[in-house]
Amino acid sequence: MKRSLGPLERLFPMPCVLVVGGSIELADTLTVAWINVIASTPPTIAMGLRKTRRTLELIRENGDFTVNIPDTALVAAVDYCGITSGRATDKFADAGLTLAPSALVTAPIIAECPYNLECRVTSETTLGEYVLVLGEIVETHAEERVLRAGTDVVEMGALDPLTYIAGAREYRSIGRKVADAYSVGKTVTSSDREA
Amino acid sequence: MKRSLGPLERLFPMPCVLVVGGSIELADTLTVAWINVIASTPPTIAMGLRKTRRTLELIRENGDFTVNIPDTALVAAVDYCGITSGRATDKFADAGLTLAPSALVTAPIIAECPYNLECRVTSETTLGEYVLVLGEIVETHAEERVLRAGTDVVEMGALDPLTYIAGAREYRSIGRKVADAYSVGKTVTSSDREA
Repeated sequence: MKRSLGPLERLFPMPCVLVVGGSIELADTLTVAWINVIASTPPTIAMGLRKTRRTLELIRENGDFTVNIPDTALVAAVDYCGITSGRATDKFADAGLTLAPSALVTAPIIAECPYNLECRVTSETTLGEYVLVLGEIVETHAEERVLRAGTDVVEMGALDPLTYIAGAREYRSIGRKVADAYSVGKTVTSSDREA
Repeated sequence: MKRSLGPLERLFPMPCVLVVGGSIELADTLTVAWINVIASTPPTIAMGLRKTRRTLELIRENGDFTVNIPDTALVAAVDYCGITSGRATDKFADAGLTLAPSALVTAPIIAECPYNLECRVTSETTLGEYVLVLGEIVETHAEERVLRAGTDVVEMGALDPLTYIAGAREYRSIGRKVADAYSVGKTVTSSDREA
């Protein structure tokens, strides 16, 4: 039995990352769950940010940002960066996060986050109180220890990323492997192929 | 020690949903991992679809679509809908999925998915071989059994949603609760407040 809940802004699960704008001299960060890849030609990320965020101002200064994937051990720092304003305090110092230079963009990466994307803003669209920012992913960095040896494949057991659960307002870890993609579906029989 | 991997279109984790376009008489669906909420004013979802997808053609006919969150038991059906074309076969019949009418849009929902969003297209943007579709979330449906009693809060243990892991090409479940959001960060001490 289903119940109608109205127009809720929820999808399950959401990722949970730290987005950094600015420069290594003056940066700010905020926690973002409304973010995902949305194209590969070129590799493009989309995120929704509240208009009033200081990190958005800093992103606009240089037209770039980084996306930093924290592990579950960083959960207090991640939450702190979501509930605090960088106008009032130095979030990086408070949360024990260290900035490191990016390779191709001005915005720095967060050293403690094991996976980092460098992005250049390609467009901005206002949606009421939010701004949809599109960014081209121009570089990626990963800790060797989270990679399957000799490949660019990230092992979830080693990355141990956070997810954000809207409504319940929980952070959760990633669970067990359920199946291989592009594979388990082959067990389904096509009605057309049967005919 | 970090390694640079180049401009990869990966973020961890991604959700994994079935998007439906068309009508209850003629619908198609595809598996989408490049999707998320990106604003709440109004509630808006963003997704990236390959230009050539038949479901996109059907979405355009009525200007609406549904987003259906499958549970881990549906993993074979989900993968099948990602690797098969609706031009060649009836994915719903093949995968044992049942269409049910939506309340406000023409595109039907998938009955077996415990959480469903109804969305109206608000914009389309071409990004190379992909199209970024924005949709306003106009209605939500959830199985009573996945809701915390008397609320609209979804329990992850009951919903048991899939996530998609890019690169490794795995489907995974959601893991343990790590912490409460808007709460665990209060344990971090502000350097300014200390001063």
